[in-house]
Amino acid sequence: MNGEHIEPAFMEEALKLAREAAAEGEVPVGAVVVYEDRIIGRGRNFTDGSGDPTAHAEFLAMKDALGKVPGVFRLTGCDLYVTLEPCAMCAGAIVHMRVGRVIIGAPDPKTGACGSVMNVAEHPALNHHPQIVRDVLPEECGGVLRSFFRRMRERGRRR
Amino acid sequence: MNGEHIEPAFMEEALKLAREAAAEGEVPVGAVVVYEDRIIGRGRNFTDGSGDPTAHAEFLAMKDALGKVPGVFRLTGCDLYVTLEPCAMCAGAIVHMRVGRVIIGAPDPKTGACGSVMNVAEHPALNHHPQIVRDVLPEECGGVLRSFFRRMRERGRRR
Repeated sequence: MNGEHIEPAFMEEALKLAREAAAEGEVPVGAVVVYEDRIIGRGRNFTDGSGDPTAHAEFLAMKDALGKVPGVFRLTGCDLYVTLEPCAMCAGAIVHMRVGRVIIGAPDPKTGACGSVMNVAEHPALNHHPQIVRDVLPEECGGVLRSFFRRMRERGRRR
Repeated sequence: MNGEHIEPAFMEEALKLAREAAAEGEVPVGAVVVYEDRIIGRGRNFTDGSGDPTAHAEFLAMKDALGKVPGVFRLTGCDLYVTLEPCAMCAGAIVHMRVGRVIIGAPDPKTGACGSVMNVAEHPALNHHPQIVRDVLPEECGGVLRSFFRRMRERGRRR
């Protein structure tokens, strides 16, 4: 675990990845995995480019981080910073990966599974419960999504 | 979609994959994806061997099937046969993949997310709802898991 400290610089790094996704026409979500104050995994939404609807930012960041925590099989003791609240698939993966803390930028009122429409991450039946920290740079994280969808709508209207 | 027909032979194929997993010391779960009466994706639990806790049978089967349904990006119109009720991660992936039907062998009273401890697959907030068919060869599907864990316990006692 990385103590109680929340480092906005890591969310800024996740935001940078989200903006890279937007530049490639992907829904802008970014994520980093942090272990002992160091980024060990990065991911940005890549569903369109890969043709894989499961290629979510936090899922890819966790896969990227696997094997990089000394002496453990999973992501025990890691923080996951993600610009948008994880969906059920990603929240389930977070539990399997044994992530210590999930630090979330913007809430997802449509499919968020860390409290918004479901709560997979903190479900009492599951055998691991990451700590959930909400609303870290929520305006910036939600803002990149809002501008992306606004641009998409404008582009649609011009067609 | 493959109509209303449930084909036990496809669950037998998933069971075969589960037994292959057991033979390699993996928790025995198997899955196949079927499109127009043909298997287009196969997977068996591979979490230990791959060092990836997300390498669940049905997740791997869906990834294997991606790109094999003519004219669609996802798994629209496909059936997923899986020997054990999917967890939250896999149920979320099933929704993202737009699987038409999920045919389940044994229920998972500990982490099942298609009705047992959660219901991600049929959650009203989500924009796709696969049809869920339960209890297809449940004794056989649950049996391979029970024998696997019994053997593990006996091995543990002999140490």
